[in-house]
Amino acid sequence: MGGPEIERLIALLSRLPGYGPRSARRAALTLLRQPQTRLLPLADAMEQAARSVRSCSTCGNLDSRDPCSICADPGRDRSIVCVVEGVGDLWALERAGVHRGLYHVLGGTLSPLGGTGPDDLSTRPLLVRLEEGGVREVILALGATVEGATTTHWLADRLSGFPVTVSRVGQGVPMGGALDVLDDGTLAAALLARRS
Amino acid sequence: MGGPEIERLIALLSRLPGYGPRSARRAALTLLRQPQTRLLPLADAMEQAARSVRSCSTCGNLDSRDPCSICADPGRDRSIVCVVEGVGDLWALERAGVHRGLYHVLGGTLSPLGGTGPDDLSTRPLLVRLEEGGVREVILALGATVEGATTTHWLADRLSGFPVTVSRVGQGVPMGGALDVLDDGTLAAALLARRS
Ligand SMILES: [Zn+2]
Ligand SMILES: [Zn+2]
Repeated sequence: MGGPEIERLIALLSRLPGYGPRSARRAALTLLRQPQTRLLPLADAMEQAARSVRSCSTCGNLDSRDPCSICADPGRDRSIVCVVEGVGDLWALERAGVHRGLYHVLGGTLSPLGGTGPDDLSTRPLLVRLEEGGVREVILALGATVEGATTTHWLADRLSGFPVTVSRVGQGVPMGGALDVLDDGTLAAALLARRS
Repeated sequence: MGGPEIERLIALLSRLPGYGPRSARRAALTLLRQPQTRLLPLADAMEQAARSVRSCSTCGNLDSRDPCSICADPGRDRSIVCVVEGVGDLWALERAGVHRGLYHVLGGTLSPLGGTGPDDLSTRPLLVRLEEGGVREVILALGATVEGATTTHWLADRLSGFPVTVSRVGQGVPMGGALDVLDDGTLAAALLARRS
């Protein structure tokens, strides 16, 4: 229907989060109606992003710079590192504007049953950052899921050997909830109510 | 957050049908995690589609060929033309496999209040096709909305001067319903139950 180019476009669009065949067809039609003003700009934005965006070699954030804009910002407090599961959590905390320090993106949570161990996450790079010195507080900002709690406990244990204060986001994160769906106020409260 | 490339990607993704800022961020993260296998292939599919897909100069269908695959198919019955509002309706009828003739895509419906008149739609090209001869039946397959009914009446009136049978999809299209959300069976029934 419409040739291989349309078929391929619909097939790839249908793999977008929240999309299926029907929404992919609708999106394809919307975009194909305005090839110059909708389709080509989006294609270009995707290509530019794919070519320029990398994981920050320090913190794991996604950015077109390395070190990322946050690690490179002289205005951030380099003595506080907030550990998050993913870049989506980092984005949520940045939108809330409640953390003035740096980040460390783990890339997931420990899951003994799912086969995700410490070496599958960015745990060693975190320990290396601490060994390099200058960090006095680590905030563990993981979701209040079973895996998040497991990871928090494991990290708190590993970090107890370092001369840093280890705190964790507490009050405010609802049980079973992921961090990146919380409103800014809840995130601020959770961060302020962190405990050692 | 992450530089201008990510910001632009999220801004354009958030304009996709059914998407908003949150789903756009989620999609951007999903795609950025797999730049080679997800992001670049989608960007390429969009660019190829934008460069190759055109409106068929005969029927208005979207295709990378002109005339489109349907108009060019010698196996289709060229004496029956099914008039639809948009390409999405054409796709729905093709998926249902209930129409063996050709199509004519109007590009919308008449809307006196919305300022859409006959010349804003592909009505003249339809009349030209009929003047060229060879068509013995026109099926008006417009949605059962007020605008769809208005358009059906206007077209039935204009076509009464031509030596063609004019039928309209009837039983099966629910009141207020658009054509492209119907299941295949309903579409088949509506087409079989067409009346002159
Ligand atoms: Zn960084
Ligand atoms: Zn055509």
